[in-house]
Amino acid sequence: MPVVDIHTHIYPPSFMNRLRSRNTVPYIRDGQDVSTSRLIILPGEDDASIPPTSRGRPVGPEYYDITKKIDFMDTHHIDISVISLANPWLDFVDADLAAAAARDTNREVDHICSQHPGRLFAFGTLPLSANAEDIVTEIERLSKAKFMRGVIMGTSGLGKGLDDPALDPVYSALERSQQLAFIHPHYGLPSSVFGPRAGEYGHVLPLALGFPLETTIAVTRMFLSGVWDRFPGLQVLLAHSGGTLPFLAGRIESCIGHDASLMKQGKLKEGRRTLWDVLNKNVYLDAVIYSEVGLKSAMTASGVDRVMFGTDNPFFPPLEDAETEWQSVKINYSAIKKACADSGKDAENILGANAVRVLKLDI
Amino acid sequence: MPVVDIHTHIYPPSFMNRLRSRNTVPYIRDGQDVSTSRLIILPGEDDASIPPTSRGRPVGPEYYDITKKIDFMDTHHIDISVISLANPWLDFVDADLAAAAARDTNREVDHICSQHPGRLFAFGTLPLSANAEDIVTEIERLSKAKFMRGVIMGTSGLGKGLDDPALDPVYSALERSQQLAFIHPHYGLPSSVFGPRAGEYGHVLPLALGFPLETTIAVTRMFLSGVWDRFPGLQVLLAHSGGTLPFLAGRIESCIGHDASLMKQGKLKEGRRTLWDVLNKNVYLDAVIYSEVGLKSAMTASGVDRVMFGTDNPFFPPLEDAETEWQSVKINYSAIKKACADSGKDAENILGANAVRVLKLDI
Repeated sequence: MPVVDIHTHIYPPSFMNRLRSRNTVPYIRDGQDVSTSRLIILPGEDDASIPPTSRGRPVGPEYYDITKKIDFMDTHHIDISVISLANPWLDFVDADLAAAAARDTNREVDHICSQHPGRLFAFGTLPLSANAEDIVTEIERLSKAKFMRGVIMGTSGLGKGLDDPALDPVYSALERSQQLAFIHPHYGLPSSVFGPRAGEYGHVLPLALGFPLETTIAVTRMFLSGVWDRFPGLQVLLAHSGGTLPFLAGRIESCIGHDASLMKQGKLKEGRRTLWDVLNKNVYLDAVIYSEVGLKSAMTASGVDRVMFGTDNPFFPPLEDAETEWQSVKINYSAIKKACADSGKDAENILGANAVRVLKLDI
Repeated sequence: MPVVDIHTHIYPPSFMNRLRSRNTVPYIRDGQDVSTSRLIILPGEDDASIPPTSRGRPVGPEYYDITKKIDFMDTHHIDISVISLANPWLDFVDADLAAAAARDTNREVDHICSQHPGRLFAFGTLPLSANAEDIVTEIERLSKAKFMRGVIMGTSGLGKGLDDPALDPVYSALERSQQLAFIHPHYGLPSSVFGPRAGEYGHVLPLALGFPLETTIAVTRMFLSGVWDRFPGLQVLLAHSGGTLPFLAGRIESCIGHDASLMKQGKLKEGRRTLWDVLNKNVYLDAVIYSEVGLKSAMTASGVDRVMFGTDNPFFPPLEDAETEWQSVKINYSAIKKACADSGKDAENILGANAVRVLKLDI
């Protein structure tokens, strides 16, 4: 079976130019030469107390040059990558420009995939700052694009979160066209929650906690708002093994079951769809969780046939240039090996077979 | 082996009076008779859009009458309870009154335990709004109290979080007197993160997510600030199986290991104390996680000898008065049974043997 990476990002050249043309988050600040360019995508990274040359992260060709992605795949024994635009996608684009930006970006990415047949597929990007009609049009266009296998989206939806009923036409179009929605964090949590000393801990708090906690909250809101009651066929792929949903699903269900205002006022009924049902029937989880403990939770919560290997490339590169194999990838490979010690079949499923089946990667 | 509940709260009578004397959160609003009194402890619960008779939760004798706790224990086959003041403890008390309030409350709780020999022990409460000297004095006093077996504390510390270096004398006193610190959430997350529709979901988002995410952030900050490097003997018990730490520990460690500002500027070294080390040597987890998936993560992350049964009583009571056995307790019992299906010894450890050994519950 092939190894398939379903969580791997790219900023195609036109998107790099878009970031270079800006001077507020998200943007790229060019230094004296390309090797000193910095990518600033998180609001907290643009703090005036951080020297401009240390803000964000270096942004080299691994972000935009697809041959670097292929090299990375070869180094790490990855046969197929399902690439996606990295956050914050097109969320920041002016409403009247968003539809064209999405169409052009998706065409560009589809073309990139066509240059490496059998190696690359992609998740498309939606013009979420546009109106629902334009978004639905793009979803329909993506359903016919040769290498597209779903969409990637953040947690803000149309600006009010994934529990916004105004997203119903979007969910309906995704369900109808059987496209997977890869839900990925970007906005994190308000910096106040990380306290006055957060700056001493590098990027750790917003990256390690802000991201998965954002996903957890966003998808719980989506579930509570009844999205899957209205669209029972909607399938989502959750970044970072669901944030923390596999671990917290029991507490969420218990809190619902003990909430008088929900259970006694007829909003929810016995036999209702539980979060466990959704985890088992509507949710796929990536295996980007960096531990056997976390991965086993994901495998138990959603089922071994719903967990898929990913790398988060080009993020979390080695600290030392001399390293060729990325530590971040090795940790996730190792977690799969340990969590599937009793079953080579489980490992095959997570490493690639699930992705081939679910995303119809005809090879 | 006895069954021991290490997560079970009480508001002793003097504390009830304290809450009744207030009209801002936290407070008790008395209705026409005691049966309609409401307890409002979370900022989000005091929203003017909620009718006063629906704010917070009913507060009956199960909060202050210890005979109700004993009844609850008998109904649920619990031999020993280690009771603790419920949130928000004495965090809100004026600084100049806090030391006396803590001393009096702890004496009252110790006396309550003495009335039920062999059935009750307690975690004491600290005067965290006072100065460090007063807090240390109370810790030393608690170390000699007959039924006290540690302290309970929230995540705000002296107001700046658990990573505040001003807490070092407190951690030092806890380490020196070998008292366990039960770290429990209260403050949750800013309501903005739950979105404009949060009110439609009852208390679910702040209770199911706000609480464990608060614990996760607070303890990660504590770890990153080096508390356990300075106080390697400090032992903590984390509410709700550590928030989400067992699930996220791998991501946190990976983010640290990939953070150039931490790893390359000499702040952290190879061979450093990892979060896994702390989970295995300094952290105890309660088993209040309401699922086999979550409990297994806790057992694997910290070890079966470091997980202890709890109920969170008197919170999460049955919705129907006719129910005698609490569903919230049954779910956690069931999770232990399933997670320990292969080992009765593991179940015994979690249900009581660990608590007897760790807290020296001489019976």
